[in-house]
Amino acid sequence: MVEIPERPDPASSAPPAVPTSADVARLAGVSRATVSYVLNNAGAVRISEPTRRRVRAAAEELGYVPHAAARSLRAGHSRMVLMPAPNVPVGPLYGQFINELQWALSRLDYTVVQYAGMGLHGDEAARAWAELRPVAVIVPGGGLGPTGVRILKRSGTRAVVTLGPERVEGAHALVMDHYGVGHGAGAHLLARGRRRIGVVIPQEPGLEYFSRPRLEGVRCALEDTGAAVTELPLAYEEEAAARIARRWRSLGLDAVFAYNDEYAMLLMRALQDDGVMIPEETAVIGADDLLLGRLLRPRLSTVHIELPSGRFLAELVDRVVRDPGGVPEAHKVLGARVVHRESS
Amino acid sequence: MVEIPERPDPASSAPPAVPTSADVARLAGVSRATVSYVLNNAGAVRISEPTRRRVRAAAEELGYVPHAAARSLRAGHSRMVLMPAPNVPVGPLYGQFINELQWALSRLDYTVVQYAGMGLHGDEAARAWAELRPVAVIVPGGGLGPTGVRILKRSGTRAVVTLGPERVEGAHALVMDHYGVGHGAGAHLLARGRRRIGVVIPQEPGLEYFSRPRLEGVRCALEDTGAAVTELPLAYEEEAAARIARRWRSLGLDAVFAYNDEYAMLLMRALQDDGVMIPEETAVIGADDLLLGRLLRPRLSTVHIELPSGRFLAELVDRVVRDPGGVPEAHKVLGARVVHRESS
Repeated sequence: MVEIPERPDPASSAPPAVPTSADVARLAGVSRATVSYVLNNAGAVRISEPTRRRVRAAAEELGYVPHAAARSLRAGHSRMVLMPAPNVPVGPLYGQFINELQWALSRLDYTVVQYAGMGLHGDEAARAWAELRPVAVIVPGGGLGPTGVRILKRSGTRAVVTLGPERVEGAHALVMDHYGVGHGAGAHLLARGRRRIGVVIPQEPGLEYFSRPRLEGVRCALEDTGAAVTELPLAYEEEAAARIARRWRSLGLDAVFAYNDEYAMLLMRALQDDGVMIPEETAVIGADDLLLGRLLRPRLSTVHIELPSGRFLAELVDRVVRDPGGVPEAHKVLGARVVHRESS
Repeated sequence: MVEIPERPDPASSAPPAVPTSADVARLAGVSRATVSYVLNNAGAVRISEPTRRRVRAAAEELGYVPHAAARSLRAGHSRMVLMPAPNVPVGPLYGQFINELQWALSRLDYTVVQYAGMGLHGDEAARAWAELRPVAVIVPGGGLGPTGVRILKRSGTRAVVTLGPERVEGAHALVMDHYGVGHGAGAHLLARGRRRIGVVIPQEPGLEYFSRPRLEGVRCALEDTGAAVTELPLAYEEEAAARIARRWRSLGLDAVFAYNDEYAMLLMRALQDDGVMIPEETAVIGADDLLLGRLLRPRLSTVHIELPSGRFLAELVDRVVRDPGGVPEAHKVLGARVVHRESS
């Protein structure tokens, strides 16, 4: 076993010395290896219950906590699953998915950390993640390229999984294509007899990653039908919605796909305040199927989005960590289903 | 300098060998110390530009990335700031605060990780955090006690900062007391002539941490005024709100503080569907001052909450990391201000 010094450089300014496993071993009258076996619960090694108790008591008395990084240096890999923290505001739907994923990974004995590398992009971000030597990296959104995947793998990351519309060479992929969300909305409005369809494009940075494929989906659903798409850039602000509402009648639209339920609520309010009848004059549909859509009058039609289960992704990660040599898997995971209510 | 072996145990199953700084040194024809100086940007040491270039090219060719944990073992401390990931759904207000904090810490050259220790509580959680040897820990919510603080400090954490209503022995505190939010709402409803005031208590686990002090604040504002408080347990579901609305008139309330704007929207909708006139029969006030409150009709009165600036907290963390010996600081940081609109 490789010996890892756990005591900080005495020349550094750290105030009280941090207790080490050697201190615990000395107090308990056992070897450092025994301390390590007991505190890391290495089940295969036989150590008597009184010895275990003595080691635990010594650790308690000294306030000793094992050092995850030292342990992972010894083991050759960590149990850390790293996810870059999203730097766009995530909705309740995605928040719930992340929560479920973290639960599932915790049950498989992984430690999940969300890494906030604000301002880091592309390979630079991958290099910063690699410095923490995670055993797996899950990348939602985009921004990781084939070079980044290679950097991670060269540093010992066993599983690299992306969540997004496209596959990245060398990485496993849960393919979440928002195209289908837009396609569902477009097809629904068409079926309701609408022909001049506005599509809200949020102006908040980071959201183009979702809004572009949604727009693409609407366009595709309307192809060769004689219906037309008008892009409606919109910031999530009352005044911006009011500006669109004031020129609504000159736009001549009979329907709008509002990106999601929150933007739908914002725009619908502005339209109603300007006397636009919904759905008679303009049909409105959102996406995400949030509770707030059911609280609006008329009740908001929406596209219900089915994210993958956190357990499914956790099991994929675990499988790849155990057997990192396989061919990258790709799974299509985003379900989209129109929920027709009163606004369309 | 302490030598840290960076190569995994060859007996482990890790597939390709991870390149080490020794490999980089060999390829570049320099010492390992030189590699370390160049790649960690140790400015004090003079190394010629051609040598620097040779080292960087060798690292690039081999795909070598420095190991943060090994570096922190050498340095005696890391640059990692750990925050337990919230396991209650955080609102947009808090999400924005966290974002700002992460930016500010990144600018001070800290790495922020959110730790998802699902199912870990109290000292057990503190021990799990300590295993990662963070230089600072920021704990929102509650759950960290004096023992947990000691565990962290014994493991080398220099700054422990709590965000919550109470101070914890040994930790610095940003005191965020939600009492004032409730007090503001209660005083406002009283000033509007209301005397029988309902207070929504969300049934979602984790929120009692905020809802209890808010309730306390309302009670205090009404003390000795002859006005009375009725607790209204409410889950964030349409059906639960409808049940309360159906028995509304038998409750005889003339006002309600709905915990926050989202619960206010839910309850207001149910009351309006049952024909309760707002604000004539029942005044409603929320909290958080979200955009959605301005989109309701009547426009929602609310309590605007001022969270501390992320920069303020980042600077506190940095100050304590540099000088960990000082007396724990406590700062009151939560501002609450009533915004009167049409619903009250």
